Amino acid sequence: MSGVSPKLGGMTANSTTSVSIALGDRSYPITIGSHLLGDSQTYCALPKANTAFIVSNTTVAPLYAQRLAAALSSHYKVVHQVTLPDGEEFKTWETLNLIFDALLSQGSDRKTVLFALGGGVVGDMTGFAAASFMRGVPFVQVPTTLLAQVDSSVGGKTGINHPLGKNMVGAFYQPLMVVCDLDTLQTLPDRELSAGLGEIIKYGPIADAQFLDWIEQNLPQLLARDVAALAHAVKRSCEIKAWVVGQDERESGLRAILNFGHTFGHAIEAGLGYGAWLHGEAVGCGMVMAAHLSQRLGLVDDAFVARLTTLIRNAGLPVKGPILDTGDNAGRYLVLMRLDKKSEAGEIRSVVIDGMAKAVMRSAPDAMVREVIDACCR
Amino acid sequence: MSGVSPKLGGMTANSTTSVSIALGDRSYPITIGSHLLGDSQTYCALPKANTAFIVSNTTVAPLYAQRLAAALSSHYKVVHQVTLPDGEEFKTWETLNLIFDALLSQGSDRKTVLFALGGGVVGDMTGFAAASFMRGVPFVQVPTTLLAQVDSSVGGKTGINHPLGKNMVGAFYQPLMVVCDLDTLQTLPDRELSAGLGEIIKYGPIADAQFLDWIEQNLPQLLARDVAALAHAVKRSCEIKAWVVGQDERESGLRAILNFGHTFGHAIEAGLGYGAWLHGEAVGCGMVMAAHLSQRLGLVDDAFVARLTTLIRNAGLPVKGPILDTGDNAGRYLVLMRLDKKSEAGEIRSVVIDGMAKAVMRSAPDAMVREVIDACCR
Repeated sequence: MSGVSPKLGGMTANSTTSVSIALGDRSYPITIGSHLLGDSQTYCALPKANTAFIVSNTTVAPLYAQRLAAALSSHYKVVHQVTLPDGEEFKTWETLNLIFDALLSQGSDRKTVLFALGGGVVGDMTGFAAASFMRGVPFVQVPTTLLAQVDSSVGGKTGINHPLGKNMVGAFYQPLMVVCDLDTLQTLPDRELSAGLGEIIKYGPIADAQFLDWIEQNLPQLLARDVAALAHAVKRSCEIKAWVVGQDERESGLRAILNFGHTFGHAIEAGLGYGAWLHGEAVGCGMVMAAHLSQRLGLVDDAFVARLTTLIRNAGLPVKGPILDTGDNAGRYLVLMRLDKKSEAGEIRSVVIDGMAKAVMRSAPDAMVREVIDACCR
Repeated sequence: MSGVSPKLGGMTANSTTSVSIALGDRSYPITIGSHLLGDSQTYCALPKANTAFIVSNTTVAPLYAQRLAAALSSHYKVVHQVTLPDGEEFKTWETLNLIFDALLSQGSDRKTVLFALGGGVVGDMTGFAAASFMRGVPFVQVPTTLLAQVDSSVGGKTGINHPLGKNMVGAFYQPLMVVCDLDTLQTLPDRELSAGLGEIIKYGPIADAQFLDWIEQNLPQLLARDVAALAHAVKRSCEIKAWVVGQDERESGLRAILNFGHTFGHAIEAGLGYGAWLHGEAVGCGMVMAAHLSQRLGLVDDAFVARLTTLIRNAGLPVKGPILDTGDNAGRYLVLMRLDKKSEAGEIRSVVIDGMAKAVMRSAPDAMVREVIDACCR
């Protein structure tokens, strides 16, 4: 991978750093550090408007909404809040409409700025609400989970789920800025920390062998929530994602490599019902399955599969897929995988690893995918 | 207005003409003529895909869906259809979801092309479905009403209504092409023909004095559905709209002039309940009210107001606004007008005519807007 310097040196706990997403007139900064969320200085470059709207959920709002509102009150005359139910199962039309109802009943206009305060679900829904309210209003991502900081808040993918598929309805719509306050990670449940590590691990095999080494060496510090370790992991993940998205904003090619583990992962999420497994858990297990597929395609060796499986297990993530159908389990996976947005004309296409730190999109015969599912589920 | 040649000469009934919307890599043609909809040649420049999806409604589908499906079957392996209930009151989340349900249950992918066959409601909803399904799939507008041919199918505004405001949720999303088959206008109810004439008349005062003269002189032919007259009216309207949209795709400035009559008109539609008046009827009456406001602002004289009012009345459109509240009618209008997307910080802004063939956006004091409403409603 070219274009990104490795910068493996750690960051101190109190420093603030910034990664830029280069997308012409839609470029924006990701600010990473401590004490950011409640500091009014964080938001001083945002455009002037009368009204700000904090969208959060019932878990995150009690922890951080007041602090964010106080920081925003020096920039906006009015700061409204709307609180959504918490969970992937609420990433629906009905919940999205709660945002529109609040915006319209409280006098918003085209300049109103939305702030997504929460994890990936809040960010995806707030982003889609911003993309489509009055055909587009500005928004800011304030991700409070590790997964959202390293993945979902960056790059402009927004949307909601449909009963027949995850993120099937949405928009590519970029925020004005992303504020990654590392302090919010201290209140994160262990299971969600692990889910975020799943997406961080992903950036190694698809783009950066050195980063994969670093994660292996620093996993204990990451699991202990060492701020300097988290700061580096978030920054490096955002750099890699920024590099990919800057070249392919709308996923016409390269960007698809960010979906390593996601074709199997989405099948797990849809098959179990949204919310049963966290997205990062499904992706973690999905990466193990995609590694097996890469090996069967002759692209990587057994040692790579074992190494990645160990790292994912040590990060606290599942490495065996769930049984989705006691009759024809692999068949059920195949049906769900065919609904993936990457599939074309009914053919399953997934991201596989080709050697180290290089990912490619490949079609695989159904029989081979079945073998992988049979080998990886219990 | 510069950049568009007047070309007032008529077109013969059998010729096909094309107007181009210049938006860089989102540019597309509007093809205008007879016998287009059912001719497979019309669609030969579209990208290859397995599946096409015709979205129509219960009124239009029986008339034209079969013919369109036959023409498309030489380009696509499978042509699916989804039929929506007919009417502005169905321009909702619930109806939009019927499109997503159909797309997902019938094996669509990112290359599936949607065809909007119908009037403005079908076009706006199909366009928004295309904008947001899998974060964007291609679509084609096949408008079958005069209003859709001259206005709503051109320019990429898509969306649905919210109980608190019209078109409050949507996207700017351009079609691959627009097919205006003039033959479909022969089956249009008189009331809808008049509604389309309302939007055609709009292009005169905002941009082209010669065109306004032409409409006055050719109104009998237009009302008699003379194909050559309709062809010229559609072409000239599309040229003016193309010129405006080409300069300001996302309505950050100039494009707002296309909303002449719409601030009052949207209040009428929302106040009566969507569907009670046709959109073009509300806009026709709204233009009379906006002309009165222009006169009170000192921008046009009484003669202009009288001339425009006569033309709108002769086109078969209402020129007096409905009473929305027997207590404080003007107050009710003001509440609804403040919900308009053009309002900012609670201030009503509307498009007014400044001299002939020039429109501008202006704020007006509430008291003056009240006077206009009192003078124009019964």
